[in-house]
Amino acid sequence: MADDPAELLHELIVATRILANQKVLDAFGHVSVRHPHDAGRYFISRHQAPELAETADLVELDLDSQPVRPTEFRLYSERVIHGEIYKARPEVNAVCHHHSHDVLPFCISGRELVPVFHLPAVIGHVPFWDQRDEFGDTNMLLVKPEEGASLARALGQNWMVLMRRHGATVAGRSLRELTFRTVYGCENAALQSAAMAHGHVDSLSAGEIELSSAHSVRPPSTNRAWDYWVRHVEKAGLMPAKGVSKTAAKRSAPTQRTRPKAPKKSKAKRRR
Amino acid sequence: MADDPAELLHELIVATRILANQKVLDAFGHVSVRHPHDAGRYFISRHQAPELAETADLVELDLDSQPVRPTEFRLYSERVIHGEIYKARPEVNAVCHHHSHDVLPFCISGRELVPVFHLPAVIGHVPFWDQRDEFGDTNMLLVKPEEGASLARALGQNWMVLMRRHGATVAGRSLRELTFRTVYGCENAALQSAAMAHGHVDSLSAGEIELSSAHSVRPPSTNRAWDYWVRHVEKAGLMPAKGVSKTAAKRSAPTQRTRPKAPKKSKAKRRR
Amino acid sequence: MADDPAELLHELIVATRILANQKVLDAFGHVSVRHPHDAGRYFISRHQAPELAETADLVELDLDSQPVRPTEFRLYSERVIHGEIYKARPEVNAVCHHHSHDVLPFCISGRELVPVFHLPAVIGHVPFWDQRDEFGDTNMLLVKPEEGASLARALGQNWMVLMRRHGATVAGRSLRELTFRTVYGCENAALQSAAMAHGHVDSLSAGEIELSSAHSVRPPSTNRAWDYWVRHVEKAGLMPAKGVSKTAAKRSAPTQRTRPKAPKKSKAKRRR
Amino acid sequence: MADDPAELLHELIVATRILANQKVLDAFGHVSVRHPHDAGRYFISRHQAPELAETADLVELDLDSQPVRPTEFRLYSERVIHGEIYKARPEVNAVCHHHSHDVLPFCISGRELVPVFHLPAVIGHVPFWDQRDEFGDTNMLLVKPEEGASLARALGQNWMVLMRRHGATVAGRSLRELTFRTVYGCENAALQSAAMAHGHVDSLSAGEIELSSAHSVRPPSTNRAWDYWVRHVEKAGLMPAKGVSKTAAKRSAPTQRTRPKAPKKSKAKRRR
Repeated sequence: MADDPAELLHELIVATRILANQKVLDAFGHVSVRHPHDAGRYFISRHQAPELAETADLVELDLDSQPVRPTEFRLYSERVIHGEIYKARPEVNAVCHHHSHDVLPFCISGRELVPVFHLPAVIGHVPFWDQRDEFGDTNMLLVKPEEGASLARALGQNWMVLMRRHGATVAGRSLRELTFRTVYGCENAALQSAAMAHGHVDSLSAGEIELSSAHSVRPPSTNRAWDYWVRHVEKAGLMPAKGVSKTAAKRSAPTQRTRPKAPKKSKAKRRR
Repeated sequence: MADDPAELLHELIVATRILANQKVLDAFGHVSVRHPHDAGRYFISRHQAPELAETADLVELDLDSQPVRPTEFRLYSERVIHGEIYKARPEVNAVCHHHSHDVLPFCISGRELVPVFHLPAVIGHVPFWDQRDEFGDTNMLLVKPEEGASLARALGQNWMVLMRRHGATVAGRSLRELTFRTVYGCENAALQSAAMAHGHVDSLSAGEIELSSAHSVRPPSTNRAWDYWVRHVEKAGLMPAKGVSKTAAKRSAPTQRTRPKAPKKSKAKRRR
Repeated sequence: MADDPAELLHELIVATRILANQKVLDAFGHVSVRHPHDAGRYFISRHQAPELAETADLVELDLDSQPVRPTEFRLYSERVIHGEIYKARPEVNAVCHHHSHDVLPFCISGRELVPVFHLPAVIGHVPFWDQRDEFGDTNMLLVKPEEGASLARALGQNWMVLMRRHGATVAGRSLRELTFRTVYGCENAALQSAAMAHGHVDSLSAGEIELSSAHSVRPPSTNRAWDYWVRHVEKAGLMPAKGVSKTAAKRSAPTQRTRPKAPKKSKAKRRR
Repeated sequence: MADDPAELLHELIVATRILANQKVLDAFGHVSVRHPHDAGRYFISRHQAPELAETADLVELDLDSQPVRPTEFRLYSERVIHGEIYKARPEVNAVCHHHSHDVLPFCISGRELVPVFHLPAVIGHVPFWDQRDEFGDTNMLLVKPEEGASLARALGQNWMVLMRRHGATVAGRSLRELTFRTVYGCENAALQSAAMAHGHVDSLSAGEIELSSAHSVRPPSTNRAWDYWVRHVEKAGLMPAKGVSKTAAKRSAPTQRTRPKAPKKSKAKRRR
């Protein structure tokens, strides 16, 4: 993953466009990446359909999901999903929350999602989480830190969690690994549903999952898929311009030194 | 919702293009909006595939679904669906009738449609209506006022009604709320069908429906989705020009003062 | 339907492009129209994927499906489907044979196709035909006149027939009626399959079929759908140029007077 | 199939683009063709998403799947699939390995794939292969020659083999026959799944398979479909330029005379 923040923000927008173009994201859902130089912060778009986000729309949040600098932007109400997972899992550097139509049938039926061919072995074991269990009737959005923390506990040491009657959240060590796991998690779901209609589902053995997954998360696989998806993003006219706007570049690393007390100020505005 | 009639007619065309581009509408179906200054009238396209409608194709009808001014245009034979719902439900300002392939399986199988994830909570309880029950064998079109009134009674205080062996009708307080509910009603149907194939359907609790729905009908949600769908309408080359034609603008508010006896004249032509 | 042969040939190409663009036709399948001035002949493309046909590719055949004039073109091996239906059904002026993915599941499962919503009422009763019943093991193509005649007998006085392990053949009084029935026959099949997966299929009553069908085959319905499909053909860059090439125009009505003994000559070449 | 190597390499790229455009191939999968003048070698792209391959990306391998000349290119780890089938089946000149979403449900459920309509009769009997049977837990990729040889034995004298929890491999006497069989194998799978959901699957008789298959593999059928798919590749902007780059042309026939000991050298690098 890019070490240069400006480069990384560009890659975040590309990953988001890939996931939109692959029909994983639609008007809702969001993708984030952890700051490459400060594990206590992450970048995510302001509140909008993720496909529409440009680097200038990215905001920098702390792990309590509060803006590092005051901002006029409306923020995603569910951003605690990202912050709480980054808190709980130091090796996670990228997170995606989505409502893919391939995965939602499992969130509605409660049937377990299991790797059914080699490429999606990277999803591994996929636990369930139901907001109702701990919080009763809600508007089903994860807006409080404790709701995000509860989801992060359900995720545990896994890489994907299904949220009952809601959607899925996926984690990765890098944006490319995240994108690969997110897309193949959806493909696995679609194909498992099709096999369920055949009346039998054969899944990978524990050994096959471990060996296939280890192979697929390596750059030759994730880059091969990334290059293919990027070509399709280009054909769809969705590729963001490479030059990162000055505003956005500033908003990442450089300007961080100039924000002495902003965090506390913005924490005061936290919705709870 | 726009208060300026010319602005509102443009928004009606945009909503219609969104619903066509999202594959809710095809050669058939129609969308209408109530007059912002006169609760006794509404706007709807002349008889044609809804995707093809321009503001110049819009006609102004009274709640008996008769043209406010004589017109040479052929009108939708099922326009009483709109007029009778506006009569029965003062808070409804926009109506859509469609035959979406997501929803029709429910109209054919008679299986109940229930909210299965948070975004479509806005459909609430969805009753059924069968034209055959009250009117016996027909050509299945709602052409008589009493057929429209019967459908409006089945809709009751709900926001979406399924019509057996026919399609669906959806209502909204505004065009954006209507568009959101119509699209997510279809998505819910598709996903519920998929979960039914898994053998189990978990639906939102009454409390979750109430809380999720209250959140989703607010502008941050409906606008976020609207902006996304508009972008896709633009990419599909379907965005109507913003400048409303003079003819169309005239046909709305300004010229209404000049029609003293037109309504009765046109009522005489009513098909019954 | 156009009375001018040149106009009619253009409409045949448009109908074919509509059916290709609606995914009814692919590399295989074909559409024909009866000669407007001579009930004993019909027009059909030379052997090729139907979407690629231009008016210059159309040939004129007699009802034995032999070329009216000698031609170097390779002809569809299954053209007897068209000729034998025109022989048996004087009111039929247009025929389509296709392998739509919506309809094929019924041809494979043998489940009866029934009208499940109002628009496809125009398919009416849809009988089955199995080439194996009368002809045993074949290459499953209808190449002999008696195979086409057998299919025409199975069609009887109906408008659509399903061919086991093969596809469907649809008839119409005009190209627009044919196009409407063909597209809605496919939509009905897709929706009936979806309702079957729900576990129950409610179909139109005999009275509803009769009344709905009578309404839908009238020009206001078939033209409304035709105009919509034409717009999509235009957007897909598939609209044929309106000007009919001189060659093609000549090959239709005008040059027919110059073919004194050609038919018998070409009959000698008939494959049997 | 083209006898001129440069022509043949162009056709290999076209076949690959067709299979990508028809959604058979995605980021993964690969297609190869045997050298027209030397049965002991074949051409395949370097490691990348197959849709992105140009003729300049093609490498020439011997039947041990080792490069004929040293190359800097990363190679497909699963290329032994191709080499071992070319070894075992002298009449096979083209091979495709893919993970089509139509076929994978059968690889997961273990349900037998059978020809359900006339066009896919060319798939004939389709055996299964499970890497686990002979090799236990692996990363599920066929990287060793003995893994490729095991798959070739399972294929036997058939033309398509399903790989459990993995995908499919298809063979052909020519690139066009391969492309036809690969696409129709997928269409058959999709339609058989749909008929299975109807509760009954009727398949072709042995005689129908033999007669239909013999008809479909002839050039009139394979070329008609090829021309149609090429048109769609053109419309998608995927058609490769006809002029083969000098580099690529050189890499095929001409430069073969200049490689005296290269094979042994590269064999030493073989991964085992």
